[in-house]
Amino acid sequence: MSRLTCTISISLDGYVAGPDPGPDRGLGAGGEELHEWIFGLASWREMHGREGGERNVDSDMLQEGLDATGAIIVGKRMFGGWDGPWGDEPTLGVWGENPPFDVPVFVLTHYPRETATVGQTTFTFVSDGIESALEQARAAAGGKDVGIGGGANVIQQYLTAGLLDELQLSVVPLLLGGGVRLLDNLGEAPPKLEQTRVLESPSGVAHLRYEVLKP
Amino acid sequence: MSRLTCTISISLDGYVAGPDPGPDRGLGAGGEELHEWIFGLASWREMHGREGGERNVDSDMLQEGLDATGAIIVGKRMFGGWDGPWGDEPTLGVWGENPPFDVPVFVLTHYPRETATVGQTTFTFVSDGIESALEQARAAAGGKDVGIGGGANVIQQYLTAGLLDELQLSVVPLLLGGGVRLLDNLGEAPPKLEQTRVLESPSGVAHLRYEVLKP
Repeated sequence: MSRLTCTISISLDGYVAGPDPGPDRGLGAGGEELHEWIFGLASWREMHGREGGERNVDSDMLQEGLDATGAIIVGKRMFGGWDGPWGDEPTLGVWGENPPFDVPVFVLTHYPRETATVGQTTFTFVSDGIESALEQARAAAGGKDVGIGGGANVIQQYLTAGLLDELQLSVVPLLLGGGVRLLDNLGEAPPKLEQTRVLESPSGVAHLRYEVLKP
Repeated sequence: MSRLTCTISISLDGYVAGPDPGPDRGLGAGGEELHEWIFGLASWREMHGREGGERNVDSDMLQEGLDATGAIIVGKRMFGGWDGPWGDEPTLGVWGENPPFDVPVFVLTHYPRETATVGQTTFTFVSDGIESALEQARAAAGGKDVGIGGGANVIQQYLTAGLLDELQLSVVPLLLGGGVRLLDNLGEAPPKLEQTRVLESPSGVAHLRYEVLKP
């Protein structure tokens, strides 16, 4: 059964991006530090066409996610770097000529756009809602899971709609003090969770995995 | 060397108390659920004069903290249930005739009060600041650690003052959606942390321990 999952790095104070984001600082002040644990990993380097890197609990966890995922859903801002209508972007999306995905990506946006292929990655733009994006992503995932890439707002929408099956947080020992909090805006009756795994990372991060219980 | 430590249960969305607290609901809506993992533990039951209970990772963690701690600091609200001047409280503090502490407790308050002994516990009321409370607690701790019992505001004060050495969060898979967030109000330059231990609890909680690094 294809599940909807989300794995994301989060600061100990709950932020997935720091304060004061800007054109050169999409993740806000200190936000890049959320992902430092990942850059040296073998599975991450391979995904970006590089050799070498660490093989440990972190890289196994990352590889497990890559193996299980057949399609990805992201928000427009995560894809393009900003909200609002499509402009004269020099390249399609923030990843440039070689997006680090080898599965189809579905981009949630209010502004329709033709499906585009960049490098090996097909981007499909979905403007008729999160259910439609999930349905299309499931159909493209070949029986594998669908992963939500972010941002926070997209994750919140799927979580509050009761559509998310699994949430895995890589808790980084960082206090950002401001920015975008992941677990906000969850409505009057936030979903119930059950812890399914806790991993201690050699790089000082904790990977906490939760099943989202159905009402 | 006596250290200043804090171990506290926190919801996955960062709250140590839920929304809408009231006289009969000091921890707010859903807040009591933060502590459910603890009630069945042997070390907790023993601390409250009861027999039996579970012995596992959780009870070991709790016992380790009890063994290491020689004095406790709490805020006035945690001690008495509300802010403001002392009134005609029927009993001294929210714990009644038999407070569950066998070490001296130091209560931070703006309203001076004579030291009082209830059951086996001595409560000293400190109204000249957090450094003074820490100094007095250290002197009373007989070389052991000083633990901060809460609430969030007291923990935040010690954390931002650079006085906290260790923070241990028992992350409960609960989304409270509102209430009192522990890791807020940490100022412009929040302290830096280093993860020192991650424990997976059989009751579905994650115990994350951090060293607070000195600047």
